[in-house]
Amino acid sequence: MKLLRYGETGSEKPGMLDADGNLRDLSGIVDDISGDVLSDAGLDKLRAVDPASLPLVEGNPRLGPCVGGIGKFCCIGLNYSDHAAETGAKIPDHPILFMKANSAIVGPNDTVMMPRGSTNTDWEVELGVVIGTAAKYVSAENALDHVAGYCVINDVSERHFQTQLSGNWTKGKSCDTFGPTGPWLVTRDEVADPQKLAMHLDVNGKRMQTGNTNTMIFTVAQIIEHLSGLFTLQPGDVISTGTPPGVGMGMKPNPVYLKKGDVMELSIEGLGQQRQTVGQDA
Amino acid sequence: MKLLRYGETGSEKPGMLDADGNLRDLSGIVDDISGDVLSDAGLDKLRAVDPASLPLVEGNPRLGPCVGGIGKFCCIGLNYSDHAAETGAKIPDHPILFMKANSAIVGPNDTVMMPRGSTNTDWEVELGVVIGTAAKYVSAENALDHVAGYCVINDVSERHFQTQLSGNWTKGKSCDTFGPTGPWLVTRDEVADPQKLAMHLDVNGKRMQTGNTNTMIFTVAQIIEHLSGLFTLQPGDVISTGTPPGVGMGMKPNPVYLKKGDVMELSIEGLGQQRQTVGQDA
Repeated sequence: MKLLRYGETGSEKPGMLDADGNLRDLSGIVDDISGDVLSDAGLDKLRAVDPASLPLVEGNPRLGPCVGGIGKFCCIGLNYSDHAAETGAKIPDHPILFMKANSAIVGPNDTVMMPRGSTNTDWEVELGVVIGTAAKYVSAENALDHVAGYCVINDVSERHFQTQLSGNWTKGKSCDTFGPTGPWLVTRDEVADPQKLAMHLDVNGKRMQTGNTNTMIFTVAQIIEHLSGLFTLQPGDVISTGTPPGVGMGMKPNPVYLKKGDVMELSIEGLGQQRQTVGQDA
Repeated sequence: MKLLRYGETGSEKPGMLDADGNLRDLSGIVDDISGDVLSDAGLDKLRAVDPASLPLVEGNPRLGPCVGGIGKFCCIGLNYSDHAAETGAKIPDHPILFMKANSAIVGPNDTVMMPRGSTNTDWEVELGVVIGTAAKYVSAENALDHVAGYCVINDVSERHFQTQLSGNWTKGKSCDTFGPTGPWLVTRDEVADPQKLAMHLDVNGKRMQTGNTNTMIFTVAQIIEHLSGLFTLQPGDVISTGTPPGVGMGMKPNPVYLKKGDVMELSIEGLGQQRQTVGQDA
């Protein structure tokens, strides 16, 4: 299934795509795509619904983040071997974790607003993993049983804030609108192998990032094993699993950053695409 | 006012202390101590209630975290000049920010569970600041207008996870139960000067931390100014503002860490006290 949320910010309704790619209204069945709805039992309940029986959503509404009430927005840094090689960084011994503020989460096509004065805002296409059932001390072998599904995430990053403000990376990762999530949550039964997904990101029509989840240093299953040894991963938590080569910070001879009016388009195989215009706070 | 939440985990009710220190049930007035209830208008509505008219809560119920639905749990590191001197760390140019997973938040007297295998769990008494109205690009001069009130936080920390697992500090700060918050939210009108509050923490009856918020490097107002330039601080967000000297990691000649059965007792002037017994995941 492809589950999504549509409507204005803060009042999104749950929906799903039917076999023809039409948007169907799920609000008669569930309140939101969140929490218990993401469990195996919750998803089975939705699978039992005939999409043709659901109201067709007219027009072309805004899409919200594909999961509601995201608790933790966990991000893994430097997780692609080709990206690590590009930056000259050492391969880490464990998944590098930082948190992105959940207030940064927006819809897949919402405007990305650079903060006031920012001149170092950058892009990062990433595979997002949505937790479906609570995970604590799970092994990699069983880890994917705890996944509801996958989605596209743009881990937008302000590099000056990230590296020059005496903080952890969180400062450059948590600005409002820096977490486009969606367009939809593709349930895990429809993703044959999360470690074999092509991904791309273009800026103003020019291909900047090309990658594949098969060069991840730590697999989705290994990441879940590691994080679940630190804390409980809860239904609706999202893990953004790192970015492949081609970010602006790594451009030669000089870094290239976003400017007002730029357009980012990104996609992951089978998970749909995002498109954001860049704005800036006055 | 002293606002609080009582009852079992996940089903806490809102309450307040009356002038005699008795617990009164606020559930007939508001659903929770969270979100809009924390705004100036929301708090004024509660001030207009005669505590004697509220049902008296019988017995001695568990206290939950004093704020519900905490969105971001922002923490400031190395923010006491005497603590920085003790550790030999350089005074930072900006507030050091890291995020604590909001799944770590528990009540003020709940058991703190060390994770499986942990041998480096440490204590940190901290002043918690609860945001009442949204703050974006605010100046230090106006920053405290956005504060609903203050509370005690124990920023429990696993030092091995924090420093040895290739992550940001988040890994050692986010374990389940590592964020006791409360016992109550003291509204800002009752805190004459948040930069003049004595604070202590004892382990097994022995005084380990003694401090005062007057040695903070960045004041509460300066922290809010800085963070609100990065992202929107939302009602119900909590900022934990750093710890004074005396953490276990800094003990000479060797660090001293918590062990199963230890008892932590901590307090901040005018904000009440916490008491946690230490357990450990099998």
